[in-house]
Amino acid sequence: MLGSIEAGGTKFVCAVGDKNLNVVDRISFSTTTPEETMKKVFEFFNAYKDLKAIGIGSFGPIDINKNSPRYGYITSTPKLEWKDFNFLGAVKKHYHIPIGWTTDVNAACLGEYEVGSAVKNDSCIYLTIGTGIGGGAIVKGKFIEGFGHPEMGHILVRRHPKDDNFQGWCPYHGDCLEGLAAGPSVEKRYGMKAQDLGPDHEVWEILAYYLAQALFNYTLVLRPEKIILGGGVMKQPQLLEMIKKEFMALLGDYIEISEIDEYIVKPILGDNAGIIGGLILAKEACK
Amino acid sequence: MLGSIEAGGTKFVCAVGDKNLNVVDRISFSTTTPEETMKKVFEFFNAYKDLKAIGIGSFGPIDINKNSPRYGYITSTPKLEWKDFNFLGAVKKHYHIPIGWTTDVNAACLGEYEVGSAVKNDSCIYLTIGTGIGGGAIVKGKFIEGFGHPEMGHILVRRHPKDDNFQGWCPYHGDCLEGLAAGPSVEKRYGMKAQDLGPDHEVWEILAYYLAQALFNYTLVLRPEKIILGGGVMKQPQLLEMIKKEFMALLGDYIEISEIDEYIVKPILGDNAGIIGGLILAKEACK
Repeated sequence: MLGSIEAGGTKFVCAVGDKNLNVVDRISFSTTTPEETMKKVFEFFNAYKDLKAIGIGSFGPIDINKNSPRYGYITSTPKLEWKDFNFLGAVKKHYHIPIGWTTDVNAACLGEYEVGSAVKNDSCIYLTIGTGIGGGAIVKGKFIEGFGHPEMGHILVRRHPKDDNFQGWCPYHGDCLEGLAAGPSVEKRYGMKAQDLGPDHEVWEILAYYLAQALFNYTLVLRPEKIILGGGVMKQPQLLEMIKKEFMALLGDYIEISEIDEYIVKPILGDNAGIIGGLILAKEACK
Repeated sequence: MLGSIEAGGTKFVCAVGDKNLNVVDRISFSTTTPEETMKKVFEFFNAYKDLKAIGIGSFGPIDINKNSPRYGYITSTPKLEWKDFNFLGAVKKHYHIPIGWTTDVNAACLGEYEVGSAVKNDSCIYLTIGTGIGGGAIVKGKFIEGFGHPEMGHILVRRHPKDDNFQGWCPYHGDCLEGLAAGPSVEKRYGMKAQDLGPDHEVWEILAYYLAQALFNYTLVLRPEKIILGGGVMKQPQLLEMIKKEFMALLGDYIEISEIDEYIVKPILGDNAGIIGGLILAKEACK
């Protein structure tokens, strides 16, 4: 059996699956303190004595540099209780089996790359747009990473003319992409949650404008074969088409991409992308 | 012996070197028509009967997709005489040896990665800022590419407050990075060439602001270990420090990079980065 942990800032999902990636058991609970949360993680996995490996996709920022003394830590997160938490170390202390370690979005990206919407592609980006914006990328079978993992949710974008007065809410950058287009930005602007504003509200045009700019920039830097958009904000059914339209307007006929409906897509694995990716990560950790 | 072609939009450089990358002969001439220019290329290499391979780094956009019927072509360049020119095919017709094929900036990136400023790094970006802006990237030993090669010189950046009235001159996007920060933008704004404006002119602050934004965005997407800045505009000695200062202001203490003076650098190989990269490409083509 293989284990998978999708560690989100709001909730944790743990799952156990077989080598064909069939999930046979899963549990989900709120992310509270590391102590309380990890206790539930261990209770879940302790029931499986035949675990071969575990794959972890964690909220970040995390340290992924194997030569770093803090490899496996959650680092400078605004969730202060988790700051400097040695996540990988805690799991390794309980289970003496191979443990895979990456970001939550990298794990989801891996799931979609191996068995989801990008299964026929050599490269893809997975972007989640929810309470924050985060992205992972795979090119030629390898995660894009260097001095650390991508933080592509925080790139700079140009302001929409109707949105000039909003300061943005990113605690680090104010009006970076996340500060302007993640879920909480809607409530900060209008005092109402995104889902209560209705599909014709101007906010969707504003969000689509920012997200399309980001996808345009990612496209020019990485030239991926596919971009997959997940996360809570993308559950607004009108948003995907609005983003694609803005993106095509920016792209003009400058560079070639695959068919737009094949290029910007939702995850085939849906909310399971991260958990499936974690199982694949576990499988790879066995090698 | 190994051959190397650095095919720029303004000039071609051809060189011959040994397996230790020592250049033993080189020639440089203006880029005119494909017919005239390639004649000079062949005249140069014909003198070397023991060529084992040739590496080509070409101006673009070029087709790098090995499955494409137009693999090896220069594609939609505004230099109309070169549009749809089968560059790789023309070289292959003359020399029945392995030929490496990539962009000019990828070749320069490879040179710096293997034997230049990034020799100790696992990833780097090479950006040239000259008559245009182009970039190449290597992560874990592989070029970043997917549906095509990067076009990172054309990403979108926010306007400098002192530069609100300039339309930008990129024929495709108007005021993308290249339209705002490549060499010709200076002359379009002030009617004078960049080098004639003096190091204290406001234009350098404006250019540094745009370039720093681009490096910030590349950093968040790719997290490279090093960014190398080449090209004619970077020969302005004051510019590098101005870019680093603006970059640090944008970065804040959000993510870790290596020491700034180690992170944003000029090419150690100088103007030879592309030619040396071409020799490495030739060497790899032999494998």
